[in-house]
Formats: sequence, structure tokens, C-alpha cells
Amino acid sequence: MVTTTANPSAAPSAAAPIEVPRGLKGVVVTETRLGDVRGLEGFYHYRQYSAVELAKERGIEDVWLLLYDGELPDLARAEQFAEEIRVLRKLPAAVEEALPYIAACAADPLDALRGALSLAGSARGARPLMDLAPDERRADALYAAAVTPVLIAALHRLRHGETPIPPHPDLGHAANYLYMLTGREPDPTAARAIEQYLISTIDHGFNASTFTARVIASTGADLFACLVGAIGSLSGPLHGGAPSRALDTLDAIGTPDRIDAWITDHVRSGERIMGFGHAVYRTDDPRSRMLREIAETFGGERVEFAVRVERRVVELLAELKPGRELHTNVEFYAGVLMELCGLPRELFTPTFAGSRVIGWCANVLEQAADPKIIRPSARYVGPPSPAPLPPRD
Amino acid sequence: MVTTTANPSAAPSAAAPIEVPRGLKGVVVTETRLGDVRGLEGFYHYRQYSAVELAKERGIEDVWLLLYDGELPDLARAEQFAEEIRVLRKLPAAVEEALPYIAACAADPLDALRGALSLAGSARGARPLMDLAPDERRADALYAAAVTPVLIAALHRLRHGETPIPPHPDLGHAANYLYMLTGREPDPTAARAIEQYLISTIDHGFNASTFTARVIASTGADLFACLVGAIGSLSGPLHGGAPSRALDTLDAIGTPDRIDAWITDHVRSGERIMGFGHAVYRTDDPRSRMLREIAETFGGERVEFAVRVERRVVELLAELKPGRELHTNVEFYAGVLMELCGLPRELFTPTFAGSRVIGWCANVLEQAADPKIIRPSARYVGPPSPAPLPPRD
Repeated sequence: MVTTTANPSAAPSAAAPIEVPRGLKGVVVTETRLGDVRGLEGFYHYRQYSAVELAKERGIEDVWLLLYDGELPDLARAEQFAEEIRVLRKLPAAVEEALPYIAACAADPLDALRGALSLAGSARGARPLMDLAPDERRADALYAAAVTPVLIAALHRLRHGETPIPPHPDLGHAANYLYMLTGREPDPTAARAIEQYLISTIDHGFNASTFTARVIASTGADLFACLVGAIGSLSGPLHGGAPSRALDTLDAIGTPDRIDAWITDHVRSGERIMGFGHAVYRTDDPRSRMLREIAETFGGERVEFAVRVERRVVELLAELKPGRELHTNVEFYAGVLMELCGLPRELFTPTFAGSRVIGWCANVLEQAADPKIIRPSARYVGPPSPAPLPPRD
Repeated sequence: MVTTTANPSAAPSAAAPIEVPRGLKGVVVTETRLGDVRGLEGFYHYRQYSAVELAKERGIEDVWLLLYDGELPDLARAEQFAEEIRVLRKLPAAVEEALPYIAACAADPLDALRGALSLAGSARGARPLMDLAPDERRADALYAAAVTPVLIAALHRLRHGETPIPPHPDLGHAANYLYMLTGREPDPTAARAIEQYLISTIDHGFNASTFTARVIASTGADLFACLVGAIGSLSGPLHGGAPSRALDTLDAIGTPDRIDAWITDHVRSGERIMGFGHAVYRTDDPRSRMLREIAETFGGERVEFAVRVERRVVELLAELKPGRELHTNVEFYAGVLMELCGLPRELFTPTFAGSRVIGWCANVLEQAADPKIIRPSARYVGPPSPAPLPPRD
């Protein structure tokens, strides 16, 4: 395909290859107005506002609108938007019928979500981003982020032999998510804690899943293609990680008297300690700080144990690996908090995906306004070509 | 997650951002031994061999092995491999049961394939690439590429109210694909023509879907997550294109006497002419040349018309847009050839996906050997942050 008005001088094959650090580290691939992470300061923001402040002060629908439209809504607009989202939570009948079969194939909740979200987009008749007007793209984005928690909850219940629970018409996004998992209206404290967690994980700079969504969006594909690719990246152990693994660390340590020995053994053998360290933050992860504060309002033995483990990991690492600044990352207290709010471990990463999808959509909408495909190069380093074909036998 | 043995000096937040051309154009993101495209020469290769020569001289199983193992097999090894693939074509029962429901949701065959391949991976219990040994990754890759055509054919039949046809135990990869679509053993000439088309599209340098697959692979995710993301990129109008649109051009022109007027109108109004032009080639697309030769062995009015249209587009563009080198791309004769072999237009892009999956898998296997995540940066260009939160009402 070609536009006959294109500029022929832009031939990539004519230009010299450009060398950059491995993994494109530090390479600026796009401009964004959505937010940023300032690793040295331990600060991140959505648009121009502190993400942590937003999580403390606002509801998730407010932040959602902020990312999509660029402005924080007043109370009336926020309520109008919450209503707009509520009606989008309805799954197409064909998707509802497919869900039990998807759940039967996919033991892994992210795999199942990938399949289900593909179908939800298809059943909606999602069209390529490049063929849509901005308001049509935005409508797809709202729908996708509205139904993702519905799909996660339905697939979870089906996997456990239970009937999906339809969305609650009067509950906000976060409370409704907890409701769809159990059929019980959640305790408001738990619902608000989960809402704050969800807000704090909607977006986080230019991570691998966000980049994946933008690469796919840059081909002009439909929004659901972008999200399904992003879910794939999120499932990668080097990216999405697993808040549940941080709890596994707590379980493995078991009791307060075993903390020091366990940590020392792990550090000496060079093994990973899940829940600690981050690719960007060189100080406290601001999400971790906020989630610890929320967890501490719940109190209890588990929280005290987690706080003690955190303190000793940081202290012992400073002793055993001086100069290596290591702090808890978002996984650590996210796991503790989700457990406190009654979420099973297998739902930790899907729940994360259920909020990050809002951020992916915002990134896709931003990328869709840029007509340039993201397409780097590779260097061939094999034997010289063409070599003559060897005889077949 | 962190390894306590990592190098603390590698903090990306400390480094200055690196400026590169938009869309990462010309930026070398990886080294590869799989092949390359030499746009100025109109040449591309798999490993060290000319891809066109491979398509002319070898079977698809030979090329598949070449890409995965680095060596062309002798006759005995090729037959052994064909047998290995044949037994992998069996779908898990849970996936077979899910397919009708997927087909009912997804009118678009690539959307349906994305959903089905996700489930096929999940039903197999696919694990993250970074947790697998090389031979386990390779087994996943063989399985994925073996079942993809089975899924495409089954979903196509289900969408048209027909029962899927199980793979034929005695047919090779390409002939079996045609067999599963119709239930009839294909004419050997058609089967060989499609096989040559499939071989010629297995891989093609570092395109957007291949890059997508490698980005996802770099997070350590499972192979199917990578493939599903790649299918998403392939569905983008700026990437995978659509061999069917080239036929739409032939249909729109209609008869030989209308060729010149139609082309002149289109070029003058700056509209796209599907099937012409390529991002990398500045001369004949070598795939197009080969596919034209194959189409010409079939002969007939349709082929003669296509050849005449091709010639006049090139001639008229040279007159109307001097200096703009435009040639047919792979889409043009791919569409003509697939039509000659009885494939319906809605299967053109899925058929392409069914061969490209072999190349994506080869790229994923190569990427999986590199532990570095692909994660570039973005530049925040919004208002300064933190700004104070406005009051809520």
C-alpha cells in the first residue's frame, strides 16, 4: 500500500543504521502528555497531577476521565461519566456464551482474559484505529476498560465452577469489581482500598506493555488488538511481575524469628527477593509507600509482619550489598493489601491488568493520533548471503 | 523483582535521553541470524539463502527447519520433520469445543485466530519463555505454527456454518491447509503454488509484527502471548495490508479499456493504489516477481489483466510522478495467485498469518535467548508536574 503523495526521499534502506543501547534503553520513542515517572525523586504523575495524590483524593472514574480527556471532572461530570461506564458493562450475548468454553481452555487468568477481550472487541465490531474518528476511538476505549473487570470476574467464577454475577447497577467501578467476584456488596473500606490501589497502577511511564500497545496501535490495528498484545507483555515475568510472589516471600519466611536467616541466605546465594527493587526507582517506590499506609490502617499481624520484613530486607541488603539501593516495589504491599481485601492470589495480576487497561487505552488513543508506524531495524549477523542452496540429498 | 547480583550502575533514570528518528526508523534494536531484506537490490534471504530460491526449490517444511535449526535438512530429515509436524496438528478437545463460540463472536478471521491461538496455548499449558529450556521453547514453536492453519481452516468453516475437517494424515503442510478448507485433496499445482507463496512470506526482515512478537518475548512471556500480539500488529492497515485490496483494485478497474483512466484519476487525486509500493523495496519486490511467474504458469484472462494493470500503473506513475519508483508489492500477485488457487478473499490475510507464524516463532526463539527486556522511553511534554489538585466541585 502506498500514498502517491508520500515522500520518496524517506527510504529507510538508504539511511545508515542507528546504534542505540540494548533493549532501546533510554531511547525516546514518543512524546506523551499522559504522565511520567521520575525515578530519582520517587515520584510519578498522571497528566500534571501527582498519581499518589490522585489516588488519595479522587475516585477512579475521575482519574480515568483525566487521562482520556486531559481534565479532572467536577462532581456533576464525574457522576455523568460513572453512569456512562455503568451501561457499558454489559457483555454481548455471544461473548457471554463463549466465556465458559474459554474458561475451560485457559487455566491462566491472563490467557483467558486475552481470549475473552479479543472476542469482546470482535463482537462489538471493533474497526482499525486508523479508520475511526477520535470520538469513535474513545468509545472503544471506554468500552474496553469498562468490560475488562467484568470479563476477569466472570472468568474467575467460571473457572471455579460458579455462575458469573452481573454487574451491580449502583456500584462504582472498584466496588462493582469486588461485587462481581463474590455477589456480596463489599465493605466500603475494602472497596476504597482497592480503588486506591487500582488508581495507583493505571499507568506508570513507558513500561513494556504500554510500549507493546503503542507499537500495535502504530500499525493502525483496532484497539483490542493493542490491549491483547499489552496483556501478553504484562504476563512476562520480567515485566508485570506478580504481586502474589511477594506474598510467597512472606509465606516462605513464615515467622518473625526466621526473617534474618532467610534474607541473609537469599542475598548470599544471589537469589531474587520478590517485591524488592525496580527498574526505574532508585528510592522508595511511591506506590509502595501509599499502599503501606493503607495497609497499616487495616492493621493486624500480617501487616506488622510485612512491615518488619520490609525493614529487615532493606537493612540487611545495605549491610550485605553496600551501595545497592533496594526498596520495596509496588508488588510487595499490593499483595498484602489485596489479600486484606479478600482477593485470591490468582487474581492479583488480573486485577492489576484491570486497572492498567485504562492506561493502555489512554496510550493507544494518544498513539492513534500519530500516523507514523513504529518499526525499528535489525542487523543481520549470519553468514554472507546469498549462499548456493545445497543439494537436497 | 530484582536479582541481587544486578549492576546498580545501569540505572536508566540517570542516563540522558537518546534522540532517534520518529517511529524508531533505522534504529538497530537487535542482531539476527534469521535473515534480512536488501531493499535497494530487491533481495531478501532466510539465513544465508535467497528466500525466492528456497521457495522455488524446496518444500515449506525444509524452510521451517532451516529457520529454527539453522540448517537445510536432507531428504530423510525433512520427512522425519514432516511427520513430527503432522502429529502436532491435533487440537486439544477443550479448544475444539470452544471454536464454534469463538467463531460466533468474531466476524473477523484474524480476531478469531487471536482468540483461538491464545486458548490453544493455554490448553497446552504454555509457560513463560524465560522459564523454559531451549528445546521446550522449540516444541511450543512447532506446535503453534502447526496448529495455526488448523485453527484458521476450522474457524473459517464454522463461520460459514460448516463442520471443521480434521487434518489429512498424508498431506504436507500446504496441501493439508487447502484440504482442511474444502475437504477435497487439492490439485497438486495449486498446492505447490500456495506452498511457494507461503514460503515466500514466512519472514521478511524486521517488520512491525515481528518486532511486536520480539518485544513481548523480551518480557519473558509465553510464546503464544507473542504470537497473539504479532497477529494484532499484522491486522493493522499500515502493516499486514490486505492482498484482497489489490484484487479490489482489479475489480474497480473492471476491464482493460478502463485501466488508464482509472489509474490517472487515482494518481491525480492522491489516492492510494493498493498493491503498489513498499516501505523497503526501491525496485521490484522479489516476492511479486516470483508470484507473477507462478501466476503466469496458470494463465487465463485474469492473470493477463493483472499483468497489464501492473505494467500501466508503473508506466503512468513514471509519467505523472517522475522520480517516484513504484512497483507491485507482494500483495498484488499474492491476491491473484490465491484467487487462482480457490482461496476466498477473507482468507488471504489469515493465510499470510498462517505462514508468517513460522517466522514469528523463529524470531521469538532467537529473542528468548537474549535476557534483555526491550523497553524504550517517552518524553513527557505536558504541563509541569506536580500541579495542585483542583477542588472537586
